[in-house]
Formats: sequence, structure tokens, C-alpha cells
Amino acid sequence: MKGVILSIAPDARLVDITHDVGSHDVAEGGFLISTAYRYFPQGTIHVVVVDPGVGSARRPVAVSSRGHVFVAPDNGVLSPILQMDSEAGAWDAYHITNTALCLDRVSHTFHGRDIFAPVAAHLAVGVPLYTVGPKITDLLVSSPNIPRWVDPNRLMANVVHVDRFGNVVTNLRLEHLGRKFVLHIGDVKVRKLVSHYDDALPGECVAIEGSTGYIEVSVRQASAAERLRLRQGDEIEVESGDSNQ
Amino acid sequence: MKGVILSIAPDARLVDITHDVGSHDVAEGGFLISTAYRYFPQGTIHVVVVDPGVGSARRPVAVSSRGHVFVAPDNGVLSPILQMDSEAGAWDAYHITNTALCLDRVSHTFHGRDIFAPVAAHLAVGVPLYTVGPKITDLLVSSPNIPRWVDPNRLMANVVHVDRFGNVVTNLRLEHLGRKFVLHIGDVKVRKLVSHYDDALPGECVAIEGSTGYIEVSVRQASAAERLRLRQGDEIEVESGDSNQ
Amino acid sequence: MKGVILSIAPDARLVDITHDVGSHDVAEGGFLISTAYRYFPQGTIHVVVVDPGVGSARRPVAVSSRGHVFVAPDNGVLSPILQMDSEAGAWDAYHITNTALCLDRVSHTFHGRDIFAPVAAHLAVGVPLYTVGPKITDLLVSSPNIPRWVDPNRLMANVVHVDRFGNVVTNLRLEHLGRKFVLHIGDVKVRKLVSHYDDALPGECVAIEGSTGYIEVSVRQASAAERLRLRQGDEIEVESGDSNQ
Repeated sequence: MKGVILSIAPDARLVDITHDVGSHDVAEGGFLISTAYRYFPQGTIHVVVVDPGVGSARRPVAVSSRGHVFVAPDNGVLSPILQMDSEAGAWDAYHITNTALCLDRVSHTFHGRDIFAPVAAHLAVGVPLYTVGPKITDLLVSSPNIPRWVDPNRLMANVVHVDRFGNVVTNLRLEHLGRKFVLHIGDVKVRKLVSHYDDALPGECVAIEGSTGYIEVSVRQASAAERLRLRQGDEIEVESGDSNQ
Repeated sequence: MKGVILSIAPDARLVDITHDVGSHDVAEGGFLISTAYRYFPQGTIHVVVVDPGVGSARRPVAVSSRGHVFVAPDNGVLSPILQMDSEAGAWDAYHITNTALCLDRVSHTFHGRDIFAPVAAHLAVGVPLYTVGPKITDLLVSSPNIPRWVDPNRLMANVVHVDRFGNVVTNLRLEHLGRKFVLHIGDVKVRKLVSHYDDALPGECVAIEGSTGYIEVSVRQASAAERLRLRQGDEIEVESGDSNQ
Repeated sequence: MKGVILSIAPDARLVDITHDVGSHDVAEGGFLISTAYRYFPQGTIHVVVVDPGVGSARRPVAVSSRGHVFVAPDNGVLSPILQMDSEAGAWDAYHITNTALCLDRVSHTFHGRDIFAPVAAHLAVGVPLYTVGPKITDLLVSSPNIPRWVDPNRLMANVVHVDRFGNVVTNLRLEHLGRKFVLHIGDVKVRKLVSHYDDALPGECVAIEGSTGYIEVSVRQASAAERLRLRQGDEIEVESGDSNQ
């Protein structure tokens, strides 16, 4: 992919965000790009290839939003980014159909190299976005991954990512926790919110507002994911509010 | 290595192709560079350091072929690239002996840093290829890794690479399979050729022409290598032709 | 972090040295940067974020030494670099307090993105080092990790790093070994010093002066760390000198 990009856009700056998205894990890939993209300069072109349906009917798309451009399969991977724009028309999406912007020979199994990389490179050298193909309004945007209230003091949250330190990133925001809270994870109850990792006692499981703005479950200098046997997608039950014991 | 290159060639563009070649696996490294290099711009200098014999008598070489330059140990790692040029003289090879192009102090264990990186950097800033040392004609080119026919309807193939999704890349080409085929892998028989990954049923082992041009064995959204317990170098028996059952 | 850097310093060259430092392993991170940094051009800014105490009282610092600049937490990670400068005043250190050089909103858990990356980027575009904050003289420099003599012919060494091939890098220098030596590793005795990996017999454990200038324990084309069950931090007993049996 990088060779293809540099063949078309010799001056492009190439940055790897991550190669650690779980295979075919559209939800995790979408979460990671949604937390990283806004730290890049306006005008950045993000190539987001988490593409389990490569070669099938799913469309390749190019999407412009808040001054950033995303080149990706239309499989929902951009949902966490686009959900933030609640008003209609806050983004522009195009179905990539212009084969002149792709490699001459498009394989059935590696559209990253044959479609997404060359299209991104052409955009990087100034080809206008609307030349990639027809504008579309039916982009696949899945419903937001937010905690689900099951009664006034109880909600079900999700693990959206486990980072390389074993911190467990959830879809909880600070406002979900209330003044008192209990996270039920197997037999473990997490009741303490700390402001940085070092505030936890050795071995203690704590909650912390992470750098993505979401609540993480963390164990000081150890892997909370291993300790609590949590993986991406797992559910966490949360008691929240002043009435909690 | 990157620090050394940038010290000599501050404007060089550095691209990592992979750091996942198995330790000392010259065959796998050779396969990967042979499938990737042609996607890079003409004039690219490829530094190919899969070098189990570092510090021993094996020669460091610089080779020009089809507008690309390769800096590598003379241990056969470039064979898959050079085998494609069947006519004599289709490439130029030089033994790197010019110590002025190397670091002042060459270690016995890291020629990537001390020889290959600085030579590549000097070539990148315009030093002519013939200045690296004497031209040679006895470059080590191993015989091609192609399937071996054992009778008119049966051939033995090899696993040349397992990708990060667990797809098993073989040395088979589409033309080896005939109109009907059976891959025998342990107790599993693979008889179905699909055109993209999504054509397989969940859990089904299928063959597919991969993005490298070689036949892969794949399981939809799972690791075929794990399922079939296949590793780089393993043999696969293939029945091929119309007479297969 | 890279997005932040490129937003401030669009022309910065970004090079990853490694992402394989053990979680929170300040000693290993310090060793790796100390062996790599001098191969980069003068004026390089090194961002060294091995930061178990992120968000706590440990200071963020920027340090200039031998024409290189290091941006890092003040937790000793720079010790292996600074120990080489025995004379006082051989480096200049500053406590990063100037929030104008940081992101607007500094999280408690990711100072790499919010402090170290933007400060490094500002330095890269020419902001003077002294503007980051007050000069300090009490930088945390831990005592050198060198072998400890326990009697005139015996010393205790340490494993400082295991590389990706499984070579075990120690804190021993060639001069520690004497003309004869024995490394005692469990039941295995290593008595042979080779000059390159290929000098070892298959399966033989040997010592070798590695590319970092330190003695490594190595097994030809296999992992010495696995064979000897050695990990970063483990001790190795060394008999040294002519009187060894």
C-alpha cells in the first residue's frame, strides 16, 4: 500500500496509526480511528482498511467530515466518527467507482493496495473528492455503541478496546458513573475512580477517565484485561447513582 | 538503521515493508520482498536484511534489476526476484567491498546498521552503483520454489507464507489446479475455489487466488493456518485435473 | 502522537525506534535508546515515553546532551545516556512547565500525546530549549547498571534486554570476561567467545560481543532466551580470569 501511494504521491507523509486491530474487527477499528483522527492536521486523508468483506458487494467509499477525508469500505467502520455529526448533511460521502484512480488490475482480496491506497494518493495530490464516483446518502452508519440503561440505577456497558498495557477501555463516560458507582466484573467490584494510574494501590482494580475520554478499568502496572479476563465486546454491569451501596 | 540512513540521506523516504519475517527465514523474506517491490516507484532502494550468516563469509551485495536496487546479503534472499529474469544479464550485481560507504566501525553481528543501511543511503543520494565494489556474476540464486509433479495428476506444493489473518499462501498458481482439484491437508480436503473470502461458508476451507498471484487456503474470518495446523515450509499434496473425484 | 507532531511541525521526519519495550520497563527503554540515539543525526529530538508514573508528580523534562535532545519523563529512563557524561554540566535539563507548548487539554493518562509530542514538535521547528521551563540540576539519574564484583574472579551480571531473535544482551563488556571465563546460567556453562553467530555449533550456547558493545549470550539460529529461560533483569554469575577451570 505504501509503495502504491508513493508511486502516485511522492511527497505524501505516511503515518501508521496501528496494525493491532483484531482481524476483521470493524468495531474496534472504528473506535481507534475515531479517537485518533482529530489529532491529525486538517486535510489529512485517513485510509481505514478493516475490510472483512473485501471483494464482495460492499462499496468502497470516500467520506469528507470536519476537514478530514476517510477512504474506507462501507461496512460501518466510520460509524463512531460520523455518529458525532447528528445533523444531516454534516458529511459528504462518495461511492468509489472511478477505476482510473485505482490500480490497473484490482484483486479480489486486497483492496487496500488496489483501491484504497491509490485513491487516497490521488486525493493527496489534489484530485477533487467528487471525481471518485457518485455522491451517496445511504452510507452504512450503525447505531452508536453507548451504554444501555436497564433500570434507573443500572446500566450495561461494553468493552470497546484493550490497549497494549491491558487497560480495558469501555463505552462509559464520566457522567454515567454518578457520584457513587459499582462496576461488576465477574466477582470483582470496582468502586474507586482515580485521576491517574499511580493513584491505585498495587493490585487494585480502579476506574479512570482515559485519554480517549472514556472510562477505563485499570490495574497499576499490570494488565486489567488479564486479571479480569475481559476482551473487546464483553459486557460490564454498572450500578450508578447516590443510592448505591 | 534508520538513524544511519537519515544521517547520510536526510531527505530519504523510509518505508517499513514488514518486521514479521520469521527469524533467519531467508525463503519467507525473499517471497515477501518479491511480492511487494514492484509496487514501489522505479529507483527505489530496497534494504533486505534477512541475514542468518551475518559476519561470516557470505558477501554483502547490491543488485540492480528492472529499475529497482536491492541491498542484501548474498544468501539467496533475492532469488524469488531474480528467477523471474530468465535471460542472462537481466540484472547487475556488485560485491560491496568499498568500506568508505560503510560505518567506520563494522560490527560482526549487525551489518544492517553498519553496511546495508549506509550503502543504501549513499545510493539514495546519487552515489553510482558500481562504486560499491566489483561486479560479480556468481550471485547465489537458488532454484525456484515451484510445485513438483509426482505423476500426471498429482503435485506437491509448499506453504510459502502465513499472513497475519492466518491465510496460508502456497506456491501454487491458478493453472496448477486444473478444472477440478483436491488439496489434501491432513484429513481435510479442499475442493472449492472462490473468488473472494466472503464466498466461503462459515468454517469452510477454500482456495482463493490471493493478491500475490498465488493460491491461498483460507477460512472465512478465521485462521486457516491454525485450523489446518500449517506452517511456512509445510507440504501440501494436490490432485489436479478433470479425472479427479 | 504523530498527528500532534505533524500538526505543529509538518516537515518533521518521524522515525519509530521500537514499540517493543516491555510495559513500564524504564530500564529496558533506557538501554534501547542509549544504544540507538547516537546513530541519528545531530539535532535529532528523541521522544522517550516509558512512563509508568504518567499523571503523577514525576516531572516531564527536556534534556540536551551531545547535540541530541531528549523529551521524557524524569523517571531515570535517560540514565544510561547521561551516565556516560561523568563530568558535571555535560548536559542541560529543563523542567517542562510551559503549557503553551502542550495541548490545550492535558489528560492524566497520555502525556506522550498531550505533552511530550507537542513539546518535541515545537523544538523541531526551532523553539529554543530554554522556553520549555526552568533549568534543573536534580535530574533523576540512577546508578549505572554495571556488573558487580563479588570476589576477584567472580562477578554478577544482568540481562538488560532480549532482542527479537532471542539473543540475551547482558551488561558485560569484553574486558569483564578476561582471557578465560565461565557464565553460569542454571546448569549451563558458557565458556566460548565467538566473533560472529555462525561460529557457534548448532545448539551451542556462546558469548559474543554484540552490536551494542555488550556481551550477548546466543544460540545459533535459535532463541537463547528460551533455551536458557532468561528474561530481562535476570542475574548471571560470571567466573573470570586466567585461573578459571
